[in-house]
Amino acid sequence: MVKTQIRFGILGCAKVGRKMCRALELAPNTTLYAIGSRSIETASRFSSENFLPSSVKLYGSYEAVLDDPEVDAVYMPLPASLHLKWAVLAAEKKKHVLLEKPGASNVSELEKILDACESNGVQFMDATMFMHHPRTLKMEEFLDGERFGRLQYVFSSFSYKASPEFLESDIRMKPDLTAQGAVGDLGWYCIRAILWANNYQLPKTVVANRNPSLNKSGVILSCGSSFYWEDGRVANFYCSYLTDITMDITALGSNGSIRLHDFVVPFQENEAQYFQACNSKFINLSTGCEPARSGELVRADLPQEALMVQEFANLVANKADGLKVGKKWADICRKTQVIVDAVYNSIVRGFEPVEIMS
Amino acid sequence: MVKTQIRFGILGCAKVGRKMCRALELAPNTTLYAIGSRSIETASRFSSENFLPSSVKLYGSYEAVLDDPEVDAVYMPLPASLHLKWAVLAAEKKKHVLLEKPGASNVSELEKILDACESNGVQFMDATMFMHHPRTLKMEEFLDGERFGRLQYVFSSFSYKASPEFLESDIRMKPDLTAQGAVGDLGWYCIRAILWANNYQLPKTVVANRNPSLNKSGVILSCGSSFYWEDGRVANFYCSYLTDITMDITALGSNGSIRLHDFVVPFQENEAQYFQACNSKFINLSTGCEPARSGELVRADLPQEALMVQEFANLVANKADGLKVGKKWADICRKTQVIVDAVYNSIVRGFEPVEIMS
Repeated sequence: MVKTQIRFGILGCAKVGRKMCRALELAPNTTLYAIGSRSIETASRFSSENFLPSSVKLYGSYEAVLDDPEVDAVYMPLPASLHLKWAVLAAEKKKHVLLEKPGASNVSELEKILDACESNGVQFMDATMFMHHPRTLKMEEFLDGERFGRLQYVFSSFSYKASPEFLESDIRMKPDLTAQGAVGDLGWYCIRAILWANNYQLPKTVVANRNPSLNKSGVILSCGSSFYWEDGRVANFYCSYLTDITMDITALGSNGSIRLHDFVVPFQENEAQYFQACNSKFINLSTGCEPARSGELVRADLPQEALMVQEFANLVANKADGLKVGKKWADICRKTQVIVDAVYNSIVRGFEPVEIMS
Repeated sequence: MVKTQIRFGILGCAKVGRKMCRALELAPNTTLYAIGSRSIETASRFSSENFLPSSVKLYGSYEAVLDDPEVDAVYMPLPASLHLKWAVLAAEKKKHVLLEKPGASNVSELEKILDACESNGVQFMDATMFMHHPRTLKMEEFLDGERFGRLQYVFSSFSYKASPEFLESDIRMKPDLTAQGAVGDLGWYCIRAILWANNYQLPKTVVANRNPSLNKSGVILSCGSSFYWEDGRVANFYCSYLTDITMDITALGSNGSIRLHDFVVPFQENEAQYFQACNSKFINLSTGCEPARSGELVRADLPQEALMVQEFANLVANKADGLKVGKKWADICRKTQVIVDAVYNSIVRGFEPVEIMS
C-alpha cells in the first residue's frame, strides 16, 4: 500500500534548509519529520529560529536521522565533498535521496552515489528547483515544437553579489569542501539550463572562458564557458559571485526564440514570466519587427521547491507501490556533473578544449 | 556661415538606402539631394519605387554624385570591398562620409579611409544607428555611474532568419564583396555593443567560438566570440543569419545590470524599453529578489536613423563653421573593425586566441 505522506529528514542546517522546511510543509504529500546536525545544539537553534513544529525530531548527528526507521527520505544540503559518504550511507539505509547541488565533488563520486541508490532501490533526485516550475515545462513544449524549430544557440547566466561574509567564510569558499567553486554552485544552474534546452544531449567539446576570478585560496568566484555540439549548436554561460543578480536564458531556434531573466528563482512565486517569439521578421524598411517577442505568464500553485518535493515524493510513493520508476533525474544529474567537471578541468588546464565522452 | 541643411548623396541602391531616404526627410537639418547607381535605370527604379520627390537628382554613376558641387555629404551602403575606393574618392572630393558598416574589408583599408577623411577635412561617421537612440545614451549614463559599478561581463547577440533568396544572392553572401560575412555584418553590432559597454576599451584577447556556420562559398553565416580584458572583464557574442530575431544585450556590473531585447532596431520607433536593476538581493529564504529588474521606457522624437543623420549633419555644420570636431566616430569605427578583424582571424586560424595591439 502506498504511503501518501513521505517523511523527510534533513541532514545539516544550511540556510537553504529553511526554504526546504517550508516546501515540505507546503507540498501535500511530504512531512518534515527530522533535522540532524553535527550537534544537537545547532539542530535546536535551527528549529527555534525557523519556528519548526515541536513534532519535528531533532538529532545531534546525521547517522541518527538515517537510523530512524520512520524517515522515508533525506534532503542533503551538505558541502559537495561530503555527498559521497552521506548519500551512499543514506541509500544503504534505504532512505530515498534528494541531493543538493552539485552532485558531488566530481562525476566519479556522483556515480558511486547513483549506483548505491540504484542497488538499494531508492529514488534519487538532485534539488535543482527550477526544473519543477510549470514555466520550465511550458517552455519545454515550445522548445520541442515546430514553432521553435531546431535549437542553434543558448546563453545562460547566474550571478549575484555575495556579501563579504559569504566570500570570507561560506562553505562554498573552502577548497577542501567545494573544490569546484562557482562552477559547481552557480554554474550548475547555467549548465543545467543549457542541457535542458538541448534535450539533455551532451556537447562534444567544452572550452572554458579565460579570466576566471579566484579568491586567495584559489576558489573560483566567476567563470564561464563555451559548449559545442557536433551538429553545430553552440552555448555560452557566465556565472559570478561578484555582480548584480542575473538569471538569464536566451535560446535561439531556427524559427523561434525564448528569453527569461529569472530562471533560477522567479521574481514572483505565484506566477512567472518569459518572453517568446516565433518567425519574427523585420518590417517597414526594417524599422521594427513583427511579431515582437511577447511576455508569457505561467501560474504556479506552489513555489517551485514545493513542486519539486511533491514530485520527488510521488516518485517515492510509486516505488513503494512497486511501479518501475525511470532513472531520469539520476541521468540528468550525472550529465550536469560531467559538464561541471569539464568546465572545471578546462579552467585548470589553461582553457584547453575538453572532449566529452558520451 | 553655417549651412543649416546638409545635402546628401547616396551611393548605391541597397535596401537600407530606402530607410535612409526616409531618415534624411525626417531629420530637420538634412536633405536627400541625389542618388547614384551604376546605371541610371537602377537609380530611376529606386526613385519611383520609393516615391522619392522629383527634386532628387538621379545619376548613372557614383562619380557623378561625387562631382556634383551641391552635394555636401555622401551615405555609402556599398559592399565592404568597395568602401576603400569610394570613401577615399569621396573624401578627396571634399564630401563628408557616412559609411555603412562594416568599415571596410579590414582595418588597414579602413585606416586609409579615415586618413583620407582627416587629411581632406571631412567628417566621418559609420552608420551604426543604435548608437544614436536616446535609450543608448540613457543606458550609458547608468553604465557610467556608481549604481552600475564596475563592468564585469557583457553578452550581446544579433540574429535573424535570412530568406533563401538572401542566402543565395545577397551581396553579403559573396566572398569577394564581403569576405568577413556575418562577422562584419551582424557581428559588427554585437561587437560595437560590447565596446560601447566597455567605454570603448579594447579587449586584450579575442577567441572565436568554434562551430561557425559557413555557406558553400565559405561565407560565415553564424559565429560568436569571447573577449578578455586585462582586468578580468569578459564578453561573449553570438550572431547568425539562421535563427529567429534576437538583438539582446545583458551587461553585468558589480552593482547593477542592464538587459534589452531589441538593441539594434527597437521594437517600436517612438519609445524603446530596457530593463535595469541595481543592488538586487535575494529575499525571504531566497524565494525572490528585490528589486527585481524594472522596465524603463525611453521616448524617441525621431527614428534612430534620423537622429543619426541629424547628428552627422550637426558635425558637418560645425566643421563648416570652423569648429574643431573630435574624431570620436572615426575612433569608435576603427576599434570596432579591429575586433571584427580579430574575430575573423581567430576563426580562420582555427579558433586560436588573437592578441589585440592597442
